Amino acid sequence: MPNPLLDDRDVALLVDDAFDLPALTALPYFAEHDRATFAAVLDGARRLAREELLPAYRVLDEQPPRLVDGRVVVHPLLHRLFARLRELELIAAPRPAEVGGQQLPLAVYTLATAYLMAGNASAYGYLGLTQGAAHLLEAFGDEHLRTTYMPRMYRGEWTGTMALTEPQAGSSLADVATTATPTADGHYLVRGSKIFISGGDHDLTGNVVHLALARIAGAPPGIKGVSLFCVPRLRVDGDALVDNDVAVTGMIHKIGWKALPSLALGFGERGDCRGWLVGAPHQGIRYMFQMMNEARIMVGVNGVATASVAYHEAVAYARERPQGRALAGKDPAAPPVAITAHADVRRMLLRQRAIVTGGLALLVRTARYADVAHHGADEASRTRAGLVLDLLTPIAKSFPAERGFEANALAVQIHGGYGYSSEYPVEAWLRDQKLNSIHEGTTGIQALDLLGRRAVAGGGAALAAWRDDVERTCARAEAAGVDAAWSTALRTARDATLVLTGELAARGLAGDAEAMLAHATDYLDLFSTVAVAWQWLELAAAVAERARRPGADADHAAVTRACTSYWFTTELPRVVQLAALCRSSDRSYLDLDPAWL
Amino acid sequence: MPNPLLDDRDVALLVDDAFDLPALTALPYFAEHDRATFAAVLDGARRLAREELLPAYRVLDEQPPRLVDGRVVVHPLLHRLFARLRELELIAAPRPAEVGGQQLPLAVYTLATAYLMAGNASAYGYLGLTQGAAHLLEAFGDEHLRTTYMPRMYRGEWTGTMALTEPQAGSSLADVATTATPTADGHYLVRGSKIFISGGDHDLTGNVVHLALARIAGAPPGIKGVSLFCVPRLRVDGDALVDNDVAVTGMIHKIGWKALPSLALGFGERGDCRGWLVGAPHQGIRYMFQMMNEARIMVGVNGVATASVAYHEAVAYARERPQGRALAGKDPAAPPVAITAHADVRRMLLRQRAIVTGGLALLVRTARYADVAHHGADEASRTRAGLVLDLLTPIAKSFPAERGFEANALAVQIHGGYGYSSEYPVEAWLRDQKLNSIHEGTTGIQALDLLGRRAVAGGGAALAAWRDDVERTCARAEAAGVDAAWSTALRTARDATLVLTGELAARGLAGDAEAMLAHATDYLDLFSTVAVAWQWLELAAAVAERARRPGADADHAAVTRACTSYWFTTELPRVVQLAALCRSSDRSYLDLDPAWL
Repeated sequence: MPNPLLDDRDVALLVDDAFDLPALTALPYFAEHDRATFAAVLDGARRLAREELLPAYRVLDEQPPRLVDGRVVVHPLLHRLFARLRELELIAAPRPAEVGGQQLPLAVYTLATAYLMAGNASAYGYLGLTQGAAHLLEAFGDEHLRTTYMPRMYRGEWTGTMALTEPQAGSSLADVATTATPTADGHYLVRGSKIFISGGDHDLTGNVVHLALARIAGAPPGIKGVSLFCVPRLRVDGDALVDNDVAVTGMIHKIGWKALPSLALGFGERGDCRGWLVGAPHQGIRYMFQMMNEARIMVGVNGVATASVAYHEAVAYARERPQGRALAGKDPAAPPVAITAHADVRRMLLRQRAIVTGGLALLVRTARYADVAHHGADEASRTRAGLVLDLLTPIAKSFPAERGFEANALAVQIHGGYGYSSEYPVEAWLRDQKLNSIHEGTTGIQALDLLGRRAVAGGGAALAAWRDDVERTCARAEAAGVDAAWSTALRTARDATLVLTGELAARGLAGDAEAMLAHATDYLDLFSTVAVAWQWLELAAAVAERARRPGADADHAAVTRACTSYWFTTELPRVVQLAALCRSSDRSYLDLDPAWL
Repeated sequence: MPNPLLDDRDVALLVDDAFDLPALTALPYFAEHDRATFAAVLDGARRLAREELLPAYRVLDEQPPRLVDGRVVVHPLLHRLFARLRELELIAAPRPAEVGGQQLPLAVYTLATAYLMAGNASAYGYLGLTQGAAHLLEAFGDEHLRTTYMPRMYRGEWTGTMALTEPQAGSSLADVATTATPTADGHYLVRGSKIFISGGDHDLTGNVVHLALARIAGAPPGIKGVSLFCVPRLRVDGDALVDNDVAVTGMIHKIGWKALPSLALGFGERGDCRGWLVGAPHQGIRYMFQMMNEARIMVGVNGVATASVAYHEAVAYARERPQGRALAGKDPAAPPVAITAHADVRRMLLRQRAIVTGGLALLVRTARYADVAHHGADEASRTRAGLVLDLLTPIAKSFPAERGFEANALAVQIHGGYGYSSEYPVEAWLRDQKLNSIHEGTTGIQALDLLGRRAVAGGGAALAAWRDDVERTCARAEAAGVDAAWSTALRTARDATLVLTGELAARGLAGDAEAMLAHATDYLDLFSTVAVAWQWLELAAAVAERARRPGADADHAAVTRACTSYWFTTELPRVVQLAALCRSSDRSYLDLDPAWL
């Protein structure tokens, strides 16, 4: 049986039962949709992912793009895959009809992209990056940019990039040094170096449009002096496309995501690189941050997808691989058992599943909050959903990256010595996964963002809304007959999170930001653990409700309950120790002098 | 400053203060040694590792051995490194003088090999494997094998392998299917397939000697029918070396350890592969297991070494890499700070160090138990040391593999986007590390071995001895003025481990092995956490004692205390939750039907 990439039973449970996504179609923005259009989108993505993306994975991993005469040449197979991906018309799918979109809920889009990313993350990457770049033009660009560049990007005729990072600055966007000098013709002359620009050049389409951060001459220092520019590789000049002095200055040899080149770019080496200001001057970081939640959710989707494909590979391997004897049957003359007979192998499989499906549920839920935040029926519901969206985003980004990496390592482990060989695919997904804790804000940055900004935003309004939504899940689970011990445990952990947040915030309000944030990464771990327990309780409630209806899938209900039990037994109790750690007065690394190391 | 591989200050502390290795020279076996001979061994290893092994790492990683006309051809540079490694005369170093050894304590040998493995694990691998194979011949071989093969192996003229694994059997040695048919000439004719044979062929030396498991015709099924054979690639026939019908049937493309080929071998494809029985028939597994502790300690050393070289790389990078602003100084006009100014970066560095040095201390201590177990002054001390050695070995093997992998991932994380590129070396060590949780018994197997056999061995005698040795450390720390809260915490955790072990053993004695072992992996995690806390308290005591003497290194004392504080705050409290988990009645994966997945 070929690798399913995601468990379709989980997807159906999330869409129909856990989060009732069809209910979104009651909102005007999504009114053209129904369960059937959702199904069509999901079917198209899963079929392409299974039938074409995954089978091409190995060759694209082994034969990455080459740099030939200063241009990037991709594998021929990628041309075909890119054409097929374009046909799905997903780039603009969540966007409004007036810009060529389908007004698809992000929650559904999230699931569709999860299949595609599980099939081949880097092939999909071109689309995702293009969507992000075009969305910036849609949101903040002037008429020229919105008519000249945006539509071709949404149609996939051209691709886009996010050209933020510079060699000297890394994650610190305050230190962007690329300059933009105004001209009398309305455009700017851009000069500077960018690095780690994914999809920064290729021969898949006729043009690449960079959404680049740069500093207008005389701008204030720091993030308040950074502006956003549209810097195409080829600029539109009447009916012609003219070389815009964007040079590929290097290709980074990444250890994963091999089909998507990561490039160093030089803007304006010949002094003729034109950039068009997007929106107002000095607002670049603000604009980027307005897109940040969705970009980070997409990283989370990638983390889950990469862990999911490896999980399914491990399940298939473990079912087939005979080795050893069961604990209770040591007769050496008996044939060996499949390794699923060993409890620790089942533990590793269930742990992977708990991470994968729990993470996917968290992402779909977070995306659903985004749908309501943008298109909810009234201001109050939009504001409320936006608060919870903001709160959950760093978790939805980093949990799949961190625990997904662990899940990918378990998939290798289950394969034993074969997993350590490149003849089996699990090692490649482990490599792919490692990027997700680094790009779009490292895990450490997510942690500071969560505790330092989002959890304390609005005087606790986000946490209060979250509290009530967790309560709703607990009530639902109890009504469905799910073991009340679980809802009690979730309430306790939730309340502990609230109390802890209040204590840490008080430290910050008292002026001791260091004491507040010293254990931000542990706080992120704690909150993630509770957030995923919340999802598992929701899923347990959903299968319990389903079980009352005819035709329910008893196996799927059983494995869903097993995951819930696993998470509540193995992970949720960690909250007590993590909370103590967040409060602790240990100064081991706070007082550490790097010279001691 | 070049990468030091290990912190020499830690090594000195372990040798002189924490574990007083010079005291071993009071034992007759080690009497020819003193602190100066230890220093000479360590200096030779660290110099070669720093000056030649590490600089060659990249090229050997990028240009692995090739299979040419059925033979393995290694990189030319490896010939030079192998010659230099041989000159260290380490292969036989711990062995008795009568077989050409130096009677060096394993505890010192462990540290020497740690430098070499940190410099280049796979280059060192040829030596380590050869030692293990020659040691089997020394211990169990007859006069013919001990004179014909063993000395040339101990001198490094020929290398050796452990040819255990077969494609159909994996970790399950009970299922070895290679056959050995006796002949009238005293040798056996061997026929079968082996896989994952590290160093199974190469052109570094004139011969490779395989210590292979095979089943003599008519042997009972299972492990009680498996015998050990010496199967050279070229057999000694008078003065000639004759091809012995050992074919290289494939090369596995490993993701790390690139300089050491992993091969599939075919014995007797032409019907002329001769093997010489080592020791008595059907005792092969027992012989192997007698060597197992030392082989597993060496895997642990590799785990620590691989994490250590990456840790030092991360320290150097973090000190130099400017990025962002400190929490308390957000002035955008100020120059960026080194990333060590960010608390979470210091956390990641200290965490790596706590794993690396804590793991190294555990290994040196475990090796010291092995020294006393083999060469102690009297039967009682040998027996006692052997019990604790047995107890600690699964921990010393798996802790560095599991937490070392985490440490290696943190080293990548600290490098940010650069860490994701093969232009920086940290990703390669992450690949290398992953093998250690798989070979020489997976982590799951170590866990079953620890809880199912070693912790309950001798009616609790091993645990009782361990208890007293932990007590000795607590008393030492208190006498040295180390914070009594730490010794109290360690005693509490130790006692909790003892109580838990008793409870789990009682389940086994009551006939419910499944309930006893369901959480064996969590038990291993728990015991490892306590065992490493024990090392950190010993190190804290050692630096406290040193601080009273003139010339003490205050920086090293400070970072050692910081690691102790970190471990006792962050890790040791996990014991409470892990113990609850080991006792829990959760049946999530015990009752899991693989068909549900």
